[in-house]
Amino acid sequence: MEHVEKYKIFQKELVGTKDGNPFKDITIKTSFINENEKIETEGFYKGNGLYAIRFMPQKTGKWQYIVESNDPQINGIQGEFICDEASQKNHGRVCLKKDVMSKNEINFYEDDFHFAYEDGTDYYPFGTTCYAWINQTAKLQEETLQTLKHSPFNKIRMCIFPKYYSYNTEDPQNYAFIKDENGFDFTRFDNTFFENLEKRIQQLDEIGIQADIILFHPYDRWGLSKMTKQQDIYYLSYVIRRLSHYKNVWWSLANEYDLMPQKSIEDWDEYARVIMKYDVYGHLRSIHNCIPFYDYHKSWITHVSVQRVDVYKTAEMVSQWRDEYHKPVIIDEVGYEGNIDYGWGSLTGQELTRRYWEGCLRGGYLSHGETYVDKGPTIWWSHGGKLYGESVERIGFLKKILEEAPQGVKPLKLTAENHEENWDSICLCQQENWFLYYYGFFQIMYRNYTLPQGKKYKIELIDTWNMEIKELPEIYEGKIRICLGGKQYMAVRMKEI
Amino acid sequence: MEHVEKYKIFQKELVGTKDGNPFKDITIKTSFINENEKIETEGFYKGNGLYAIRFMPQKTGKWQYIVESNDPQINGIQGEFICDEASQKNHGRVCLKKDVMSKNEINFYEDDFHFAYEDGTDYYPFGTTCYAWINQTAKLQEETLQTLKHSPFNKIRMCIFPKYYSYNTEDPQNYAFIKDENGFDFTRFDNTFFENLEKRIQQLDEIGIQADIILFHPYDRWGLSKMTKQQDIYYLSYVIRRLSHYKNVWWSLANEYDLMPQKSIEDWDEYARVIMKYDVYGHLRSIHNCIPFYDYHKSWITHVSVQRVDVYKTAEMVSQWRDEYHKPVIIDEVGYEGNIDYGWGSLTGQELTRRYWEGCLRGGYLSHGETYVDKGPTIWWSHGGKLYGESVERIGFLKKILEEAPQGVKPLKLTAENHEENWDSICLCQQENWFLYYYGFFQIMYRNYTLPQGKKYKIELIDTWNMEIKELPEIYEGKIRICLGGKQYMAVRMKEI
Repeated sequence: MEHVEKYKIFQKELVGTKDGNPFKDITIKTSFINENEKIETEGFYKGNGLYAIRFMPQKTGKWQYIVESNDPQINGIQGEFICDEASQKNHGRVCLKKDVMSKNEINFYEDDFHFAYEDGTDYYPFGTTCYAWINQTAKLQEETLQTLKHSPFNKIRMCIFPKYYSYNTEDPQNYAFIKDENGFDFTRFDNTFFENLEKRIQQLDEIGIQADIILFHPYDRWGLSKMTKQQDIYYLSYVIRRLSHYKNVWWSLANEYDLMPQKSIEDWDEYARVIMKYDVYGHLRSIHNCIPFYDYHKSWITHVSVQRVDVYKTAEMVSQWRDEYHKPVIIDEVGYEGNIDYGWGSLTGQELTRRYWEGCLRGGYLSHGETYVDKGPTIWWSHGGKLYGESVERIGFLKKILEEAPQGVKPLKLTAENHEENWDSICLCQQENWFLYYYGFFQIMYRNYTLPQGKKYKIELIDTWNMEIKELPEIYEGKIRICLGGKQYMAVRMKEI
Repeated sequence: MEHVEKYKIFQKELVGTKDGNPFKDITIKTSFINENEKIETEGFYKGNGLYAIRFMPQKTGKWQYIVESNDPQINGIQGEFICDEASQKNHGRVCLKKDVMSKNEINFYEDDFHFAYEDGTDYYPFGTTCYAWINQTAKLQEETLQTLKHSPFNKIRMCIFPKYYSYNTEDPQNYAFIKDENGFDFTRFDNTFFENLEKRIQQLDEIGIQADIILFHPYDRWGLSKMTKQQDIYYLSYVIRRLSHYKNVWWSLANEYDLMPQKSIEDWDEYARVIMKYDVYGHLRSIHNCIPFYDYHKSWITHVSVQRVDVYKTAEMVSQWRDEYHKPVIIDEVGYEGNIDYGWGSLTGQELTRRYWEGCLRGGYLSHGETYVDKGPTIWWSHGGKLYGESVERIGFLKKILEEAPQGVKPLKLTAENHEENWDSICLCQQENWFLYYYGFFQIMYRNYTLPQGKKYKIELIDTWNMEIKELPEIYEGKIRICLGGKQYMAVRMKEI
């Protein structure tokens, strides 16, 4: 019998009719049944008389399936397969941490702001942005994957539709829709395009990267941002039926929804319902703004995915947005390292790294992007290719530091007692056992701390820019003064001994 | 006959009674009369039977005076003097620009946010902060004056009362009040202290520096911040009667008024009335906050004197505060260059310089301060002494650039048309004749500009950190792209030709 690894895809290709427009005319629903449950997924037409049914089993053991279709060639097809245990690096989908933690382990309140794989393994999103990478040449796509493989990133924001914007104005080779000299046929999907997209999603999965798929966006000269509502829903239904079986997909309904005034707020809510209908797994869902925030309180939104609100500060807003939305906060555009002719894309490596520390220590997450116009033939944020910036390695350093943190860390709460020592810094801590302070662009020479009574600590100085960790030889207790050396971008880690 | 230069002090010392407590008991009022007006100032007791009457004439020509006192030795003393034209560098008090501009020259609206000397000469406050410099040794005070003389600063924030705070906990040699082993006599003032203070104010004036005198502050262990309301008013009356004749004094009612909860908002308003009663010249008046803003709308307040509101940004708030208060905005504590153990005092020279550019190009002003703990025996912000930082010279460079700007510059207003090119930068401009753009911490490689139609410009690149101005060889018109070189802290100046 066929075997499929848990959280991977069981797929069958079926031969059916080519008559009419099977994309539109043929329904194909498959029930996957194990001893306890029955899950129905809708299949899709690939073209040339070929159909596919897909399923991502989340339970091991034997599964049976049976197809229902209005195409008699397909209707009634059935079979079975065995779902095996997941292999070591396969943790399933990324979920909200609160949804996967066993109830006796959950860290109430703080876990609401974080993610975990469905097997309970922690997942800290450290994303990057290559909007149009799948719309570049195959060679460039391969190069992007190579770069990603050797980067600290574990999520990528990427569009399905091509992007038309400064530094990126070329036509792609294929589109989601079939196109001829008369333009797009919005009722027929291009299998070549989707097979490549799926291959890339799978390759991302192999290197541990979540594909944060942007379903609509405004940077368009092909008319793809201005389809009718009916066309949008038809497109969404197809995309979700094809892609939702990949464990590493997230749905971002839009990049900068507010730059698409032709779609109303109610439209987006309706599109969310379409996604939820066809995605039987419940992958993470959000929507990204340019200026006005979407109402991230809405229940279909699993996490906040926002843009910087200010030329100067945004990562600093994480605390406020956590309080406001009570969901994980990802600042998906906090500004990019580079030297492009826009304020959002001309940050130094220092500043982007600072924003990362600032946002992460406040209990949020950020996405990276790179916009150097003069370093190579492509610009990462749009095309992919190579990374040239200085922040990438430092973001990796921060990621490692956060991965090493004990379970249950959360941002230090300012109180009347600790205010004087902490109002001008940020701190992640675990009870009184572990503290990670960060001082941003300040160049402090000495700093005073009042350590919790009766406890002893080892202290490390972390130079977050030079990525050096220096353990101080002493053991500390009570009121202490630590020399930080008058350097910028310093952090201090304290561990109770 | 005695001659006095316009805006300088006519002074007479008079001998009277030593009996009782002349500080309290003796009133001494002098009428100064020229052909058009009669101005009454109140004199003060120095001690040891000596009294003084003072007057700063603001009109040239002959003045007569006559003293009225309840001390018969003094009562009826009279005389006259000639007020001569002001010498070249003597421009009188600093005033609100709108109050001194002739009505056919006034730049309505924008002039509301600026200062000028009473003779109409522009005054751009570029202040610094040495809270307790007059409470240090004479040698150190002289060193401070030498440092100031060679600095770009033209205003200094300074306290009358000594300061008790980190790095500054010593007793001064003298206090405003006479002190013996039983403590202060809050009814008798120490002439030695005041003569030194006056000498310092005068020395500041000689080097073109305004003395922004802080009348009360909370950093105290001598009880001077906790006098009764009656004692406060008694002290104020004396200080204003003695010092208001110096053309270069400004009154800051408090440093961080909100840290003195023993004084109510109504108290401060009442203290302002006391100042206005005894200061017949109407020197500039404000009050400085720690956290909550004083209501700067109040009519007794001539200008906004605020502290940073945020660890990250504050200079950027100038635009908002101008709109809100419609008065000149001075951020008197925007953070200090240094490496002290407080977020407000551990900025790099780059960051303080950036804040200056940011605030000034938004049409506001800032004050400098320096807090290096490891560079010398004293810390400028508190004691005075020497300056070590990197921002001072750059602040001088900015000051020069602003002094070179044409009359009538104002911040560029964002409109639907110019928004796309300007949302992420700040710009000071004069109509379409002159533009000064600033890009802060961005490291932009190229920037696009749409120049006003039908006009031609010369363009200079200004590296605000390296203080280099490079004129580009071309003449520009229409839509242009300028290479800024991917460096931080760049400005672009355009002049119509």
